[in-house]
Amino acid sequence: MNPTSALIVIGNEILSGRTQDANIRFLATHLGDIGAPLKEVRIIPDVRETIITTVNEMKARYDQVFTTGGIGPTHDDITSACVAEAFGVPLELHAESAALLEDHYGKDQFTTARQRMAMLPRGATPIKNAASIAPGFSIGNVHVMAGVPSIMQAMFHAVSPTLRRGQPIQSKTWYALGIYESVIAAALEAVQNRYPDLDLGSYPFKRADGRGGVALVAKGSDPANLAAASQAIHDLIAATGETPIEGEPKA
Amino acid sequence: MNPTSALIVIGNEILSGRTQDANIRFLATHLGDIGAPLKEVRIIPDVRETIITTVNEMKARYDQVFTTGGIGPTHDDITSACVAEAFGVPLELHAESAALLEDHYGKDQFTTARQRMAMLPRGATPIKNAASIAPGFSIGNVHVMAGVPSIMQAMFHAVSPTLRRGQPIQSKTWYALGIYESVIAAALEAVQNRYPDLDLGSYPFKRADGRGGVALVAKGSDPANLAAASQAIHDLIAATGETPIEGEPKA
Repeated sequence: MNPTSALIVIGNEILSGRTQDANIRFLATHLGDIGAPLKEVRIIPDVRETIITTVNEMKARYDQVFTTGGIGPTHDDITSACVAEAFGVPLELHAESAALLEDHYGKDQFTTARQRMAMLPRGATPIKNAASIAPGFSIGNVHVMAGVPSIMQAMFHAVSPTLRRGQPIQSKTWYALGIYESVIAAALEAVQNRYPDLDLGSYPFKRADGRGGVALVAKGSDPANLAAASQAIHDLIAATGETPIEGEPKA
Repeated sequence: MNPTSALIVIGNEILSGRTQDANIRFLATHLGDIGAPLKEVRIIPDVRETIITTVNEMKARYDQVFTTGGIGPTHDDITSACVAEAFGVPLELHAESAALLEDHYGKDQFTTARQRMAMLPRGATPIKNAASIAPGFSIGNVHVMAGVPSIMQAMFHAVSPTLRRGQPIQSKTWYALGIYESVIAAALEAVQNRYPDLDLGSYPFKRADGRGGVALVAKGSDPANLAAASQAIHDLIAATGETPIEGEPKA
């Protein structure tokens, strides 16, 4: 059984529509690759009680939890304090992180605001990374990362060796032009029933030239089953008289 | 007090990283515009118990709830059945929607798979729209929409006149090049404390040419407070010696 992952996106800027999220897909893909697939995402505001409650619910429900956002130096960066509270430990200056930040900014410029970025829950392990002096951190099964995509990605790569892993999730997609989903629905369901451990999906698409069709996707961690289901999907498309296509057919 | 909105994104394809979500930002923006801001988003898989539990939790907690995805004709399209179960009503053929679909596909081609798209929870009101014959639907405070962005958008515009509304959320952003967040953190917090009803945020950015800075955003529904806070933000940037810029400064 693969371990499960969940993501908490902490940020008013996503909920207000100011910012297009760019982290969910990155984490979804990379967590599938290490066999710890993403099972749920919650996007929540910078509200203390909401963050604490959500962290507590998710860390109990999933094998590992990631958070993005809210670890900078401003008043709305309250993730670290909330995670400390969720774990029932104090938030305190992390000496090694403080030393790195002080070294970077200079003693005179290591202001109260900047010291916030070195405050970690007691017992947390900093996620040192190539993109920022201010660290993320791991505590228990929760990994706290920045919201800025380039920094989040560096933190994910840095914490990756410590993560729980399983059988990588692989996928195989067949495209078919000129087919409605409803035409292949029954045949696709029959394939799903034959391979209950796989996850079969059907996604309509429409090209810029107005022609459309469906993408049929099989996903799972057993390569033999995946190959067999992929062959069955190929065949059910061919049975409609259309040609199964391997890559997305561009206009 | 503005009414609250929440969104449930139902779709394995987002959680697997196959698809980049394109609906959250659209809904976030439009719900802010009608004064019913988005307070939480959950992205969940096509799993029956998960959908039912999540719909029940969210419809109790928020004034109105939107769902996207899972209302097509294939085996993984289980949203309508789950919403019916969450409301404790049967899922049944909606005569008017069935007639429209039968008319569109022709009597011979109105297959079992296609009939799924006319199955609505008893008592639901279809969301007829310009982009698809298959409707979304509203039941209680839950609005069920398609996952394909063009169809979701048409459904949102169609259901919009029935939605709960409040004071539109407006925002004002000042950009400053060459400023670290930590330099303005204390001054920004002072402005936030002066206008507790507004939501002030600070977002670092980096341009393609490597120069960076911060965007300072004030959001709220009171135009007078918003104007005053915006002026205060302008002034705190000017106090650092940098120039407040109205639009995002491009490289």
